[in-house]
Amino acid sequence: MTSKDDITVGGYLLERLAQLGVQSVFGVPGDFNLGFLDLVDDHPKLEWIGNCNELNASYAADGYARVKPKSVGALITTFGVGELSAVNGIAGAFSEHIPVVHIVGVPSTAQQKSKPMLHHTLGDGRYDAYYTAAQQFAVSWAFLNDTHTAAAEIDRVITACITRARPVYLMLPTDIAYERIPKGSLETGPLVRQPPEVDTAIEDFVIDEIVKLVKEAGSSVAILADSCAIRHHCEDELLELIKETGYPVYCAPMGKTVVPEDYERYGGIYIGSITPPEVKQAVESTKLILSVGLLNSDFNTGGFTYRIEPTSTVQLHSDHTKIQYAMFPDVGMKHLLPKLTSALRDLKSSAVSVAVPPFKATIPSPNDDPLHPIISQAYFWPRMAAFFKPKDVIVAETGTSSFGVLGVPFPKDSIFVSQILWGSIGYTVGATLGAALGARERGLGRTILFVGDGSLQLTVQELSTMMKCGLAPIVFVLNNSGYTIERYLHGKTRAYNDIVNWKWTQLLEVLGPDAKPAPKSYTVNNKTELEELLDDPDFAKAERMQLVEVMMDKFDAPEALQRTAELSTKANKYAQ
Amino acid sequence: MTSKDDITVGGYLLERLAQLGVQSVFGVPGDFNLGFLDLVDDHPKLEWIGNCNELNASYAADGYARVKPKSVGALITTFGVGELSAVNGIAGAFSEHIPVVHIVGVPSTAQQKSKPMLHHTLGDGRYDAYYTAAQQFAVSWAFLNDTHTAAAEIDRVITACITRARPVYLMLPTDIAYERIPKGSLETGPLVRQPPEVDTAIEDFVIDEIVKLVKEAGSSVAILADSCAIRHHCEDELLELIKETGYPVYCAPMGKTVVPEDYERYGGIYIGSITPPEVKQAVESTKLILSVGLLNSDFNTGGFTYRIEPTSTVQLHSDHTKIQYAMFPDVGMKHLLPKLTSALRDLKSSAVSVAVPPFKATIPSPNDDPLHPIISQAYFWPRMAAFFKPKDVIVAETGTSSFGVLGVPFPKDSIFVSQILWGSIGYTVGATLGAALGARERGLGRTILFVGDGSLQLTVQELSTMMKCGLAPIVFVLNNSGYTIERYLHGKTRAYNDIVNWKWTQLLEVLGPDAKPAPKSYTVNNKTELEELLDDPDFAKAERMQLVEVMMDKFDAPEALQRTAELSTKANKYAQ
Ligand SMILES: Cc1ncc(C[n+]2csc(CCOP(=O)(O)OP(=O)(O)O)c2C)c(N)n1
Ligand SMILES: Cc1ncc(C[n+]2csc(CCOP(=O)(O)OP(=O)(O)O)c2C)c(N)n1
Ligand SMILES: [Mg+2]
Ligand SMILES: [Mg+2]
Repeated sequence: MTSKDDITVGGYLLERLAQLGVQSVFGVPGDFNLGFLDLVDDHPKLEWIGNCNELNASYAADGYARVKPKSVGALITTFGVGELSAVNGIAGAFSEHIPVVHIVGVPSTAQQKSKPMLHHTLGDGRYDAYYTAAQQFAVSWAFLNDTHTAAAEIDRVITACITRARPVYLMLPTDIAYERIPKGSLETGPLVRQPPEVDTAIEDFVIDEIVKLVKEAGSSVAILADSCAIRHHCEDELLELIKETGYPVYCAPMGKTVVPEDYERYGGIYIGSITPPEVKQAVESTKLILSVGLLNSDFNTGGFTYRIEPTSTVQLHSDHTKIQYAMFPDVGMKHLLPKLTSALRDLKSSAVSVAVPPFKATIPSPNDDPLHPIISQAYFWPRMAAFFKPKDVIVAETGTSSFGVLGVPFPKDSIFVSQILWGSIGYTVGATLGAALGARERGLGRTILFVGDGSLQLTVQELSTMMKCGLAPIVFVLNNSGYTIERYLHGKTRAYNDIVNWKWTQLLEVLGPDAKPAPKSYTVNNKTELEELLDDPDFAKAERMQLVEVMMDKFDAPEALQRTAELSTKANKYAQ
Repeated sequence: MTSKDDITVGGYLLERLAQLGVQSVFGVPGDFNLGFLDLVDDHPKLEWIGNCNELNASYAADGYARVKPKSVGALITTFGVGELSAVNGIAGAFSEHIPVVHIVGVPSTAQQKSKPMLHHTLGDGRYDAYYTAAQQFAVSWAFLNDTHTAAAEIDRVITACITRARPVYLMLPTDIAYERIPKGSLETGPLVRQPPEVDTAIEDFVIDEIVKLVKEAGSSVAILADSCAIRHHCEDELLELIKETGYPVYCAPMGKTVVPEDYERYGGIYIGSITPPEVKQAVESTKLILSVGLLNSDFNTGGFTYRIEPTSTVQLHSDHTKIQYAMFPDVGMKHLLPKLTSALRDLKSSAVSVAVPPFKATIPSPNDDPLHPIISQAYFWPRMAAFFKPKDVIVAETGTSSFGVLGVPFPKDSIFVSQILWGSIGYTVGATLGAALGARERGLGRTILFVGDGSLQLTVQELSTMMKCGLAPIVFVLNNSGYTIERYLHGKTRAYNDIVNWKWTQLLEVLGPDAKPAPKSYTVNNKTELEELLDDPDFAKAERMQLVEVMMDKFDAPEALQRTAELSTKANKYAQ
């Protein structure tokens, strides 16, 4: 059959992605997905990005999903060699709650049955090994080997992806991609999240319990917001709660930017024992903390050093609520937040009486900076804060960058992209590609990447794809002669923490010789050179791809990193 | 305890590797393996290579194992982010029968029990997900969480690695690495392969059966040698059989170089229907084929187009023998080959009466080359054959390179490195690093890489590590404007088969600015320029790292590839 009421399986799948707002599709071709790629190429709403390798592509899909809320990242790879190259990126998306749809082109249904020793197989007849491995890093999966169930399976899997905000995995055989099926449910519009159904009686009970605790705490209540509020699209509901109640609000590292950092009742980032003293004191002396979407990981909590008693906390999560020690399954924040706002609105006058320490970044004076005139970490991040503009997308790599950037406020409507939990270095290079594409599609501002010299080496080739796509991120490469974060953990002067010092400022012209407009690269050796560059309006406009090599001291690190390293080293008990 | 009779668990493990001849250790640091890396760094016989990323490191470990027979590749990564980045490389080693020991630094035994939400975890409490995934791609594994069993577990797992010539996986917690255990069995010498025990009566029976068939076939017998003879270290036994019996001998693609290609009774590569006609005719008209270590994969057999009847074949494998349709489990070639040689030796005079087509590569004359003076594939490979020298290590990437190089003979004592079965592009860049290190340790000749422009983009950063290590491979980059092999499969002019054209000849100076001696790069636009370069003795000496950009036509491919593509496209049934 071929009629206007039917569509290929591959086409159906792409339409589902397009309906969710996907415009850029990431991946690398391979003979088991080439037919399907024709459908991407021919699709009026989709653009095939074509990455340098699959790991970078998976990072890009993750970065894209982070700046396109309510959409997903889409990744296409080939059987075995391609999909397995992407495993780390997919596992990272799982860990960090990012919805990525990973579609793998696999051998035809006939071959899946006869199991010949094809290239890209393990040579022992197992055709299910990759599928088995993939299931460790996905919340839903399907082998699309039957045209009769394909549409329903696609819908089931993508719905799980958007509902649970984690990766899913689809195996698409070469022949099935082109089989025709009825358009069916496609025409009734995009797939929607299916959060758990809850009895409103339970929700009302939960609200009452919370209100009781709030009243007991008097005006000593604060809100601690984190990443799952972003991942599960509850920013609006959260902001309403915050503004209507007037409570002081703080963020955990992963939640940075979920609350506009220029909001007058915002006090900055809380990271347990490594929080700046004033903020630490304010948070830890609060009688009741309402946490929203908190992810309780080591680097997100200062190495599990929260000084907040369970009896003083109410935790709102995407799929449950916890009040002190009591657990309420299925009571998710999406519904609960508006109810809570209504219930607490009237208490605003007492709430606003509590002062909130303002979140500011201060550039140290040369006298207070032992490294002056070298660009120290203590100086660099506050200086960057002054460079940021509203709507910037700010990406920070694991290492001195992610710790440094946490210490300074971002302008409103900016977006923060980093892997505080997964922490796979090299991630940000791929993620910047995806983020910059998403930002362009949404009409956001500049994309600014901070990446260590060590990290950039893992995934450097993706700079090329950025230029191919006509993107213009600013890439700050922190040249501190190697793995500085690790020097703080262990092996301060060991050779394994050294790297080869590349000619960083020639990378762009080598990887994008035909880029238009031509890219530009700079080295800044000291504060004066950095200041001049930042103050150059042509630079700040970011209308071409730019790379800035920032010369830094090998042993310099943000204070938050130094403190975290001490905690971490203890846990690892390296032998003397 | 600390005495001269005991050793750390980490030290024990490293000693086992050193005993097998390992000198170079690959990987990337991470906080869960840093303590262990101190032991590598301090070990008198081991050198830490330190790769740019983990996938490249796994490729390097694979390439290293291929040129260091009876040794293994050693790879160290960190929990989650590191190990998962290497999965594709490890799966490739599994597929291609390469012994790689993958050691992963993981959280301490205490943390493995309490399962905190550490960085590099999935955030859902599962600490076994990576272990589960890893088991899909290893023949043996252990979680070294108990000092009492650690030594025995290490021995068990490494023995499996060398016996089965496939990857194994070890999880080493941060605390266990430094626990002390008795040196014990370390002192009795290196671990040895433990092939299955076989009853000699069965072996004798098998020999008799084979001799019967050989006699029936008269002088019409040929030997077909392949990769598993290399992987299971049976080259010497195989060569003895060949020379003592005088039968014509051919190789499958993966077995290239297991038989010296200048041997007078060697007829070249047999690849089913895409074999050159004279060789095809010679092989397929032979009454009995003795295959040794044959791997029956698509690209190794011309897409399963062998025209050899099962009734006309005897297959010798590492762990079984098959005579016509009869299977003899556990009867492996290591023991069988010498017995076979003895049994067949007397028939030599009749064997040598059969003529063998010589394996030669002929450079086409300009008149026969429609692309002249451009460097055509038809010209390039025979010309390279004239450039090769004994003891060269020749590495060819999946794409036009691996198909092209198969068509020309290599000098004696050369080694061929390629992934004919796994076929993961980018592999050869990492593998070249490992192969060149292995070649240096063994005192072999030059390492020469042929890599497509598309493939090099996946793993380019590892060129940097080659220069860091003072290696001097020659890298031929085939610049044919993209994924030419795929253009033959599907999407001839589709944009997804295009790539960004990098400034290839600037790569080395950007990635190795301090390399000594300084690297050199060249572009050759036509045959004359290539000839001049190849004839330059300074170039051919290969005493510095060199990269040659070879300009080729976008739609030019070796004939063998064109024929394979036709077969492959049929199997994939891309829709019209
Ligand atoms: C894929 C991966 N491999 C290894 C690590 C371990 N690791 C964490 S940070 C780091 C060094 C980062 O160095 P760099 O990017 O230069 O950062 P900085 O010097 O600014 O700290 C390494 C190797 C990791 N997190 N992820
Ligand atoms: C990791 C991985 N990703 C994708 C593929 C699919 N693939 C096979 S060959 C090829 C193109 C190779 O292009 P190039 O290296 O330029 O070779 P050539 O042009 O000489 O054929 C691709 C993308 C693969 N084999 N491995
Ligand atoms: Mg660094
Ligand atoms: Mg190419």
